[in-house]
Amino acid sequence: MSGAAAGPDPGYTDLGFARVDTAREARQGVAECVYAPGKRTGHITAIVAELLDRSDGPVLVTRVEAEPARTVLAAHPGGSHDPAARLLAWRPAPPDGFRLAILTAGTADEPVAAEAAAVARAVGLEVTLFRDVGVAGLHRLLDCAEEVAAHDAVVVVAGMEGALASVVGGLVACPVVAVPVSTGYGAGLDGVTALLAMLSSCAAGLTVVNIDSGFGAAMAAHRLAMAVRSRRGPG
Amino acid sequence: MSGAAAGPDPGYTDLGFARVDTAREARQGVAECVYAPGKRTGHITAIVAELLDRSDGPVLVTRVEAEPARTVLAAHPGGSHDPAARLLAWRPAPPDGFRLAILTAGTADEPVAAEAAAVARAVGLEVTLFRDVGVAGLHRLLDCAEEVAAHDAVVVVAGMEGALASVVGGLVACPVVAVPVSTGYGAGLDGVTALLAMLSSCAAGLTVVNIDSGFGAAMAAHRLAMAVRSRRGPG
Amino acid sequence: MSGAAAGPDPGYTDLGFARVDTAREARQGVAECVYAPGKRTGHITAIVAELLDRSDGPVLVTRVEAEPARTVLAAHPGGSHDPAARLLAWRPAPPDGFRLAILTAGTADEPVAAEAAAVARAVGLEVTLFRDVGVAGLHRLLDCAEEVAAHDAVVVVAGMEGALASVVGGLVACPVVAVPVSTGYGAGLDGVTALLAMLSSCAAGLTVVNIDSGFGAAMAAHRLAMAVRSRRGPG
Amino acid sequence: MSGAAAGPDPGYTDLGFARVDTAREARQGVAECVYAPGKRTGHITAIVAELLDRSDGPVLVTRVEAEPARTVLAAHPGGSHDPAARLLAWRPAPPDGFRLAILTAGTADEPVAAEAAAVARAVGLEVTLFRDVGVAGLHRLLDCAEEVAAHDAVVVVAGMEGALASVVGGLVACPVVAVPVSTGYGAGLDGVTALLAMLSSCAAGLTVVNIDSGFGAAMAAHRLAMAVRSRRGPG
Amino acid sequence: MSGAAAGPDPGYTDLGFARVDTAREARQGVAECVYAPGKRTGHITAIVAELLDRSDGPVLVTRVEAEPARTVLAAHPGGSHDPAARLLAWRPAPPDGFRLAILTAGTADEPVAAEAAAVARAVGLEVTLFRDVGVAGLHRLLDCAEEVAAHDAVVVVAGMEGALASVVGGLVACPVVAVPVSTGYGAGLDGVTALLAMLSSCAAGLTVVNIDSGFGAAMAAHRLAMAVRSRRGPG
Amino acid sequence: MSGAAAGPDPGYTDLGFARVDTAREARQGVAECVYAPGKRTGHITAIVAELLDRSDGPVLVTRVEAEPARTVLAAHPGGSHDPAARLLAWRPAPPDGFRLAILTAGTADEPVAAEAAAVARAVGLEVTLFRDVGVAGLHRLLDCAEEVAAHDAVVVVAGMEGALASVVGGLVACPVVAVPVSTGYGAGLDGVTALLAMLSSCAAGLTVVNIDSGFGAAMAAHRLAMAVRSRRGPG
Amino acid sequence: MSGAAAGPDPGYTDLGFARVDTAREARQGVAECVYAPGKRTGHITAIVAELLDRSDGPVLVTRVEAEPARTVLAAHPGGSHDPAARLLAWRPAPPDGFRLAILTAGTADEPVAAEAAAVARAVGLEVTLFRDVGVAGLHRLLDCAEEVAAHDAVVVVAGMEGALASVVGGLVACPVVAVPVSTGYGAGLDGVTALLAMLSSCAAGLTVVNIDSGFGAAMAAHRLAMAVRSRRGPG
Amino acid sequence: MSGAAAGPDPGYTDLGFARVDTAREARQGVAECVYAPGKRTGHITAIVAELLDRSDGPVLVTRVEAEPARTVLAAHPGGSHDPAARLLAWRPAPPDGFRLAILTAGTADEPVAAEAAAVARAVGLEVTLFRDVGVAGLHRLLDCAEEVAAHDAVVVVAGMEGALASVVGGLVACPVVAVPVSTGYGAGLDGVTALLAMLSSCAAGLTVVNIDSGFGAAMAAHRLAMAVRSRRGPG
Repeated sequence: MSGAAAGPDPGYTDLGFARVDTAREARQGVAECVYAPGKRTGHITAIVAELLDRSDGPVLVTRVEAEPARTVLAAHPGGSHDPAARLLAWRPAPPDGFRLAILTAGTADEPVAAEAAAVARAVGLEVTLFRDVGVAGLHRLLDCAEEVAAHDAVVVVAGMEGALASVVGGLVACPVVAVPVSTGYGAGLDGVTALLAMLSSCAAGLTVVNIDSGFGAAMAAHRLAMAVRSRRGPG
Repeated sequence: MSGAAAGPDPGYTDLGFARVDTAREARQGVAECVYAPGKRTGHITAIVAELLDRSDGPVLVTRVEAEPARTVLAAHPGGSHDPAARLLAWRPAPPDGFRLAILTAGTADEPVAAEAAAVARAVGLEVTLFRDVGVAGLHRLLDCAEEVAAHDAVVVVAGMEGALASVVGGLVACPVVAVPVSTGYGAGLDGVTALLAMLSSCAAGLTVVNIDSGFGAAMAAHRLAMAVRSRRGPG
Repeated sequence: MSGAAAGPDPGYTDLGFARVDTAREARQGVAECVYAPGKRTGHITAIVAELLDRSDGPVLVTRVEAEPARTVLAAHPGGSHDPAARLLAWRPAPPDGFRLAILTAGTADEPVAAEAAAVARAVGLEVTLFRDVGVAGLHRLLDCAEEVAAHDAVVVVAGMEGALASVVGGLVACPVVAVPVSTGYGAGLDGVTALLAMLSSCAAGLTVVNIDSGFGAAMAAHRLAMAVRSRRGPG
Repeated sequence: MSGAAAGPDPGYTDLGFARVDTAREARQGVAECVYAPGKRTGHITAIVAELLDRSDGPVLVTRVEAEPARTVLAAHPGGSHDPAARLLAWRPAPPDGFRLAILTAGTADEPVAAEAAAVARAVGLEVTLFRDVGVAGLHRLLDCAEEVAAHDAVVVVAGMEGALASVVGGLVACPVVAVPVSTGYGAGLDGVTALLAMLSSCAAGLTVVNIDSGFGAAMAAHRLAMAVRSRRGPG
Repeated sequence: MSGAAAGPDPGYTDLGFARVDTAREARQGVAECVYAPGKRTGHITAIVAELLDRSDGPVLVTRVEAEPARTVLAAHPGGSHDPAARLLAWRPAPPDGFRLAILTAGTADEPVAAEAAAVARAVGLEVTLFRDVGVAGLHRLLDCAEEVAAHDAVVVVAGMEGALASVVGGLVACPVVAVPVSTGYGAGLDGVTALLAMLSSCAAGLTVVNIDSGFGAAMAAHRLAMAVRSRRGPG
Repeated sequence: MSGAAAGPDPGYTDLGFARVDTAREARQGVAECVYAPGKRTGHITAIVAELLDRSDGPVLVTRVEAEPARTVLAAHPGGSHDPAARLLAWRPAPPDGFRLAILTAGTADEPVAAEAAAVARAVGLEVTLFRDVGVAGLHRLLDCAEEVAAHDAVVVVAGMEGALASVVGGLVACPVVAVPVSTGYGAGLDGVTALLAMLSSCAAGLTVVNIDSGFGAAMAAHRLAMAVRSRRGPG
Repeated sequence: MSGAAAGPDPGYTDLGFARVDTAREARQGVAECVYAPGKRTGHITAIVAELLDRSDGPVLVTRVEAEPARTVLAAHPGGSHDPAARLLAWRPAPPDGFRLAILTAGTADEPVAAEAAAVARAVGLEVTLFRDVGVAGLHRLLDCAEEVAAHDAVVVVAGMEGALASVVGGLVACPVVAVPVSTGYGAGLDGVTALLAMLSSCAAGLTVVNIDSGFGAAMAAHRLAMAVRSRRGPG
Repeated sequence: MSGAAAGPDPGYTDLGFARVDTAREARQGVAECVYAPGKRTGHITAIVAELLDRSDGPVLVTRVEAEPARTVLAAHPGGSHDPAARLLAWRPAPPDGFRLAILTAGTADEPVAAEAAAVARAVGLEVTLFRDVGVAGLHRLLDCAEEVAAHDAVVVVAGMEGALASVVGGLVACPVVAVPVSTGYGAGLDGVTALLAMLSSCAAGLTVVNIDSGFGAAMAAHRLAMAVRSRRGPG
């Protein structure tokens, strides 16, 4: 095992099983987020301890089920677990005025949208959810298009062929982040079809994150919010 | 070489280099169509001779360029070549009242739509083209949606992510045949992305044909028209 | 949460977790069908309530297992559950004279064919099943080819290499919808091989739906039946 | 051909071969951009005429080679052609203070970066290029990391394995748009490897556009700039 | 350069640019066949010299165009070039009574069938070609099925979806070698679809060779013929 | 349900859930083999009853586990179940002198080899197994190469990269059927890598069957044995 | 079953179910390693017996779980089981001075790194682990880069996009073996993305082993160590 | 353009169009190699000027055709161009005693082997080529196996199924670097099949570089040679 450097703060803490990036909050506005799958509960607890100690803002653990969440929360009270989003969060940031719209094409996209919404709120965004507005019943989307367009950014969560992303991309002017979802079957190829379709979209300026990555979409929105904030000057 | 049967008509003619299916018009309402790529011009001329002799209705050669088309037409006057559709046709069927709408998402889809339209017209369908109604400017489609819905069937020709097929599928009640187009680049994977997306469509009852197959879409529409016709009874 | 519009009927009902498309029956001849996987039973029950209330014809829930089916049926008596087809249906449409043949290549294709048949019957088609007529024993198909050809449309359900679709496509004149099935192993690639093969078929005018999508094939047939019906005039 | 609606402005102009979306500038801040490949020069000229007439800001034609560019410019003087970017532009927007950094991993990424830079400048962004800072010689990137981080957004253009995107994503806080490039050979799979790698990035909040799409990245940045601008208020 | 062993015959000749396997005729019944693409004409000439000198039976060069063929033949008179098969052959084996049927689905399969036929004849098989018997016109195949079944082995050459292989596999009892062909477009994936379909065939005991490999199919038949011959005993 | 034809024997029996091909033994030398997965035990029992009644030789059920095997055997005593091969067999054919060598690269290939061996023996072939002769320890193969080459045909069963097939193909003259196995991990892609490698083999005349298809290899050998037998004349 | 040769040592032992390569230690410096998955415990025990008897150095069983490990250890005391590495080892080689650095990008790479480390140590390498130094927090890697570069070889274990391999490849001069890991989701394609990215790396001279193959990386390092050792001369 | 830092040497030179990594020779033992495709000849000339000026050892340009090579050589006399290897080299390193064997499976692998050999020699390795030793004629390889095994490292260059790599990996103890080649057709998938097969090899400790990357293999060997050298101490 390579020992941690003595002397000046190296910007990380070597816990042996993990090197916690304690400089990330200063560098990127939010502390390192912990991805739970494959980690032992004890390790998660230790990493969270370090992050709570070495940062000031939100501390997040993603994709964590109820059982380990309970254990970690017992060690670090004051946080909360959102079971739909599978998110553990401590010290959520106060809302900063950045309005994020999250749209889903159908009810199967709900878990991914839930993660996106919970992470976005934890880092201080104001989230409105527009559920089940897929293009098979286009009037549902058209009915709220103006309301969606009034947001600072839009996240579109859609599986199957992911056509909702293109349609939304053509209707609004703000940044659109598309999240392909692994629902569907057969030719949907576990989300790869939606992913490729979104990347090939005829709507200019759409960007895409990984399949099922509600977290990735929320963090992309967080980067946007920081860019907006930094230009706006002190609130 | 296996010799052709003597005696009763075997339903095909063995030309040595090809066995022409002379029973297809009786069986399926239109004679065997000749796919030109890879065939010598002399062979195409001989097959067309056989088909003109052994059938009564339209005779078609697809994907044929201007040069060989001229040669074949010289041998069999009375036909015509549509260069945009790359189609040679003799004895086109008279319009039979079946109204087919063909939509394109963008101008890049034009060659495929041209083939679909020319083949459909040659077998007796009445075609209306709705060009460049892709979802990046959705109002273009909504403006003609009612007019499209009044047709007996719709063919949607689209490359990139192919979202137009899903949107149309959700707006109209009639049969929709989607044709993925190999335009686009990168993640479009030469039409495979549009193909997979159309097959994964959230719009129920959409069907799909091969990439760039304007011919396939027109023949699917022809099967529909025959089904409608057979139920309508005589004239 | 975006609230539902007050005033005139927006054509959907916002249940919070879903926006039920109540205008679909008027637009497409059959109410929105509910895809059960991933939905909570309570949500299915609520959506069905809305659909039964806001439409007149068949209401369908697809891919639903016995256990949740029982719960939903208890809340909405009068429907029935077909376990082989995994379909819940209320108010099936009366037979309207459209004759649909459904063929399977082998016994492994049975569940997909069962879904296609049950959905097709629920929306008013008259279905005949021709089971286990795969091309490895071609005489089984030839023996019933004439009977198959007498239908208004044909659905071919086949896994492995899906060759049955091409053979049937060459024998009959009516519309043929091919459904690739995910049975088989190895090079069958969970149905992708059959899908690609059917799309590449040498039989002109064949169309294809998603892997295992008995539902999609039935809905494509329903679109055909509506097209035939609309041309035939009042019964 | 479906005729254009009479009376009120439908938001598009039907030129027969294309439906020009004349409402896009109002809807999305920049007029419809014309993708040249596959279009006849005469058609491009006509579309540009319409766009110049019906909008006030920049008019762009992408992926256009020198020869057709000359023809179109002759018809519509006042524009300019950037051969490296293959871009035709009229009425570029004045710089609006949004600082965009564009990084390339190597010299092979130059054409894609050139397109991104030219489009971004045409829509009013202030672009700084950081060329050839790939991770094989990491000190080149570290040397300019602080300067890069001071921008409002970053576009990373990289082929091969696309690792530069992840490294940059970990160093800066602002929005990062990754553009996979189709250079490289073998396992690079014409840019698909870089695409998949960028989507799988360990750096949170990275977003991705289509392979080689400098245009897409610039338009994504334009959406960001509009979001920043709208929050900043006038001037 | 590793020198060739002195003393006893090592079973190969090291020409510097190639190690010619001079033991293959004794080991496998036919000398090493030369695959022309990528080889310089002078090298082909030298290898052929060695093979003619060190073996007694047929010497073959595959995939060789007219121009280099002429040069090689000039150096080694007595051979012949079949341009359709792109095959150079010296000392073809006399017919040995093994009857091979080669079937094609369509005229596009002709070049591959030509290679299979020419190679098979050169190694002493008696070949009958059944051309253009694809399943879209099934009666063409049924008409000659009995004649095909009377052969010792069958090679089926088919592109697109390759369904002919399955149908033939179900009709005949003898060994069937399927050759997928790279014709077709879109979902045919340059022969990969036919390849996968043939491997997934419902007809038991079918075997498959590489895409477009008429040579491979002929050599598989040659292995069969040798097995039959070795069991039959002398003449 | 389509009723079975009255009058002359149609060559199949329609059991409602399956059309048993009762003509296959006459046509192809062995009765239809029943693939167990996905079939109800009662259906298997009924199909076996029909096959035992309508044929004279071996009757086989493949991929059948111990539990259903017991039930079917209880209904049809006199058969036997080989659990390693997962094969049920009645009335195995007596050995007919055709010598088949089956080679495995490693112990992981054993189940597939077991199926190949059991099916081959049931249809009358004489099988010798050469286990664990993969190329990582090449002397194991070289040690038995002469013995292998003395057989009438060889089946090579190998996973991972499947190199054994090429090496054997270069050493023996008789027909070689390669069976890719889905063992291995990562880049082995569940047998697809071995499949592609075997098809691309540098050894001429190798043929390939589906992944894990010991049954397919045995049936290919059975076709070979019938071809040899038919040329040998009465025993 | 082919019997083992009598007389001189053939270099393997035929146990019936396996041919143990007893010559491998002499040939390659370490005895054949046993891959446990798919092998019966009794067979593993027998193979280990043979290897312990016929070789002098380390004997290894990989990917073996606790339960079978216990059984095998009971039969062959003196070995040890590392549960994290899933490795059974007897007679580990003494450290020979070859210093191997193993780096992981994140905690999810730990099991693969554990296997690499345990195998490497068992064959006599001196291993230092640098955990969790992924590029999202680049300072963690830079902080130990010099220490890493002082090793004789480096193994980089990384999932997701695998960018760590390229960055390390650019920083150090010694051999770098990259191991893609199947962690991640969606576009990570179970490690295929990392695999392709590592193969496409911009860092020259990087080599790659199979997905999740800690064993393969350790054995590649062992080959390096033997090359170094053989050049260094005794002691 | 970001300006180059003033003051201390930043380890690179910013030429505007490229940032030349002038620290690479010190860091990795050989200067940055220039990949020619896509670069203008003038840019190559300028980069070479910088490299010759700022380093002491070999300077290489890869994949460069005769025409631009002549121009660059005219500007920088003293180098040489190897047309078979497409390599430009100045100041090749003197042979340092590291013996590298390069094997090819067939003549089609020659260009890749030529690049590997030329690069390896330029960086000071002693190369022996063993050409055309593919496994279809295994005795060719066995005949030189001992000679191959006496080298410090082996590079195996093979297309098609790449089986040579596994066989060599089983015969020698030293490091083996496999290079898949894009020759072959159909199922060879332009080298992807060989790549996957080599990664899945049953021979432990084999490593793989990108398709056709003779350069990559040579650089991997160079890393090995440096590791050996550093352990050997001063010559």
